[in-house]
Amino acid sequence: MSLKEYENLAQGEKLSLDTVLTNLKTDEHGLIAAIAQQHDTGEVLMLAYMNEKSIRETLETGQVCYWSRSRQTYWRKGESSGHRQTLVSMSFDCDGDAILIQVDQKGPACHTNRRDCFFFSVEGNEVVIKSAPQ
Amino acid sequence: MSLKEYENLAQGEKLSLDTVLTNLKTDEHGLIAAIAQQHDTGEVLMLAYMNEKSIRETLETGQVCYWSRSRQTYWRKGESSGHRQTLVSMSFDCDGDAILIQVDQKGPACHTNRRDCFFFSVEGNEVVIKSAPQ
Repeated sequence: MSLKEYENLAQGEKLSLDTVLTNLKTDEHGLIAAIAQQHDTGEVLMLAYMNEKSIRETLETGQVCYWSRSRQTYWRKGESSGHRQTLVSMSFDCDGDAILIQVDQKGPACHTNRRDCFFFSVEGNEVVIKSAPQ
Repeated sequence: MSLKEYENLAQGEKLSLDTVLTNLKTDEHGLIAAIAQQHDTGEVLMLAYMNEKSIRETLETGQVCYWSRSRQTYWRKGESSGHRQTLVSMSFDCDGDAILIQVDQKGPACHTNRRDCFFFSVEGNEVVIKSAPQ
């Protein structure tokens, strides 16, 4: 599946959510990559994975729910840490194999207690740790 | 592999690029998800995939090179369209399974000629096309 047949629709045209979710290009485990971006600052916080059920739960509850590939279970972000992600908006990409979610992240997004997960920063032939836990 | 053993390094500590690239958690095809973000506006432009060779080429040339899963070949972004992505910075996430690249995108990033690929935007039970080709 993919969203390819819909990619030439004009701005403002609409599809049903069910049509789009049915046509997402998930991997062999039913998963799709989801990028979480802080809605007001533009910071890219993390990348994780969702399946259809976690997408629907996220939209219904307004709290972001991923599928944890390491734990093989639903991962309601911040459920244990309190570092919740509140959904601001969700969009899918042209070929239906990635999701961009704009969120309001409470506290650090990373399990290391850093604000975002992308703290291994390339500088020439080295990689520098660019941030500290909060 | 993963970067887990390095996640508690202090801010400013350094690793060699080779160490990090060797420890990336690629999928069974040697690929890792790469998020391209416009460096000055914060727009998330697209998500694609890289392998070690395309990461090294991107760092060496300063022009972003992905691995195209559909065409099974290197994909030097903009090589045919002219819509090049010039690398500004690259970072890896806590568990080494995602890359964030800050780029300077010339023209549209999306093959539909839209600025970014995330134009299927959820609104309630509908999905609205949020942008037009440039």
